[in-house]
Amino acid sequence: RYGYFGSNSEKVKLLICNIDGCLTNGQVFLQEKNESHSFNARDMIGLANLKKNGVEVLLISALDLHNNQLLANKAVCELKQNVSNKLDFVETWLKEKQLSWQEVAYFGCYEYDIQCLRNAGLSGAPKDAAALSCETVTFTSKSPGGCGALQEFADYILLVNEKCASSHDK
Amino acid sequence: RYGYFGSNSEKVKLLICNIDGCLTNGQVFLQEKNESHSFNARDMIGLANLKKNGVEVLLISALDLHNNQLLANKAVCELKQNVSNKLDFVETWLKEKQLSWQEVAYFGCYEYDIQCLRNAGLSGAPKDAAALSCETVTFTSKSPGGCGALQEFADYILLVNEKCASSHDK
Amino acid sequence: RYGYFGSNSEKVKLLICNIDGCLTNGQVFLQEKNESHSFNARDMIGLANLKKNGVEVLLISALDLHNNQLLANKAVCELKQNVSNKLDFVETWLKEKQLSWQEVAYFGCYEYDIQCLRNAGLSGAPKDAAALSCETVTFTSKSPGGCGALQEFADYILLVNEKCASSHDK
Amino acid sequence: RYGYFGSNSEKVKLLICNIDGCLTNGQVFLQEKNESHSFNARDMIGLANLKKNGVEVLLISALDLHNNQLLANKAVCELKQNVSNKLDFVETWLKEKQLSWQEVAYFGCYEYDIQCLRNAGLSGAPKDAAALSCETVTFTSKSPGGCGALQEFADYILLVNEKCASSHDK
Repeated sequence: RYGYFGSNSEKVKLLICNIDGCLTNGQVFLQEKNESHSFNARDMIGLANLKKNGVEVLLISALDLHNNQLLANKAVCELKQNVSNKLDFVETWLKEKQLSWQEVAYFGCYEYDIQCLRNAGLSGAPKDAAALSCETVTFTSKSPGGCGALQEFADYILLVNEKCASSHDK
Repeated sequence: RYGYFGSNSEKVKLLICNIDGCLTNGQVFLQEKNESHSFNARDMIGLANLKKNGVEVLLISALDLHNNQLLANKAVCELKQNVSNKLDFVETWLKEKQLSWQEVAYFGCYEYDIQCLRNAGLSGAPKDAAALSCETVTFTSKSPGGCGALQEFADYILLVNEKCASSHDK
Repeated sequence: RYGYFGSNSEKVKLLICNIDGCLTNGQVFLQEKNESHSFNARDMIGLANLKKNGVEVLLISALDLHNNQLLANKAVCELKQNVSNKLDFVETWLKEKQLSWQEVAYFGCYEYDIQCLRNAGLSGAPKDAAALSCETVTFTSKSPGGCGALQEFADYILLVNEKCASSHDK
Repeated sequence: RYGYFGSNSEKVKLLICNIDGCLTNGQVFLQEKNESHSFNARDMIGLANLKKNGVEVLLISALDLHNNQLLANKAVCELKQNVSNKLDFVETWLKEKQLSWQEVAYFGCYEYDIQCLRNAGLSGAPKDAAALSCETVTFTSKSPGGCGALQEFADYILLVNEKCASSHDK
């Protein structure tokens, strides 16, 4: 029960994912009229699988980029931008949705994600999240951020939820 | 006969190639009006060599992107998008074309490519196809997906076809 | 006093940062009508932190690209382009602003940055600044140029300034 | 005379550089109306240094891309596209310009560059030119193609020309 899949005994109901560096590689292309950034086909597939299995997804960003809205529309996920204090924001959100931290999986890559990563039932980071120590998170992806990392974490969440369901059956 | 080039005794007549992560690196650039992605000049040369030597090419994708059509036009290859069940799709396709799995080379990088990779006469994956075990495929490229991996596999197919032809001559 | 944070006893008041290869990865996209390049969200956050803590930022480039101006506007920093002799330019700039080299942190990646790197109170380079020996700089980032390297150097500057302030208090 | 800088006793007067994979990283972005690719600021500086020191530059490509012309205009270099047989093309070009192979530096990355690489007085390849054995070329860059590799080779050419000049003085 406290092995590879951690001590989580609640099913994950919500994935909170930082956009910059997690769903994208953090690179933003600057053009005369607008900005542009890239996503990876694998990550879109991972998000679709989560939603098909009843896990909600909330995308957050410390920045405020028009293009983040395009990305959230594409992924059909809720989006909250300009989040300066992530811990405060998430706690308010969970209260509204009547969810506990144990039901949250958090995917982050910056220092200011650490408090949320520590509180969440499941926590993950892309392999190139330099600022985060491996001890903070229960899952580290093999792919870098924006290039399949989120798809790996999504697969991991679904595996944990399955284990959790079969353990509750016993 | 069962050495480096596997047990294939039929000439490859069709290459089936996954677009996302194989012909492209999987990154899609999101812009206000349309999407964009990149190909590598080397891979275009590899595809041209295959067709010059009588090997047909079919591009497939689990997604449905307008830009994939542009890419297929550029490469002058057939394209099938939105393929959710790859095994079913390929089996129907082979029946129509009166081809056997032994005459197919399959280049894939995702878990849902595994069944096709196991059935194909030749199977390959880019070196960064993290989800696939090396045991599933007979060929792994040195270049990552979207950056020359397909050109390496195309060269390998032509080499196998040559060996096959000279062996039949004996 | 001469340990990890070097011998710097003055607070850093100005960061001078080379754009190509430091704030960007040096890649410029060529299009029919204009050029485009990318920045990393992390570096923008690093620059914002510096300014919030009273460190001015000056961006310089040996080239003259319209897009560099867009980038400087986005980062709300001063910009000087077309700088062929960096040492001469910086010395004139410091005289005007009545700053000493000890109050300057310099982030560069090319051979023609070396003289400035040697003079500056703090000096840094991205890990992929191939031409520079590690001996020239006091700080080397873990991230490559244009992908978070500047954010790491900004954090380092703020840490040095804190140490410096607490040492002055004694 | 046969040490690190090879046996070259003639000054290099012409650099011939393959575009795809050498001056660019080979990636071409596909868009509705046109294509786009990127160059690195460092490589532009390297080309400018060569021309300032009297070395001519000829860019060649096996493909025929509208964007290659934009790139050649930007670099102010001659361009020849759609070159299927590189050896034949270069030999004709050298005859017209009354140059010998010993006066040529060739920078390539594909198998069909090998004959030219063997003939040229100086030969170089980017570190990610997978298909080429290190034995074919006298110089391998530390940076990958399209990301500073050409600038490194340009520096090497100028160093060889200096050695050559000082050796002729003796």
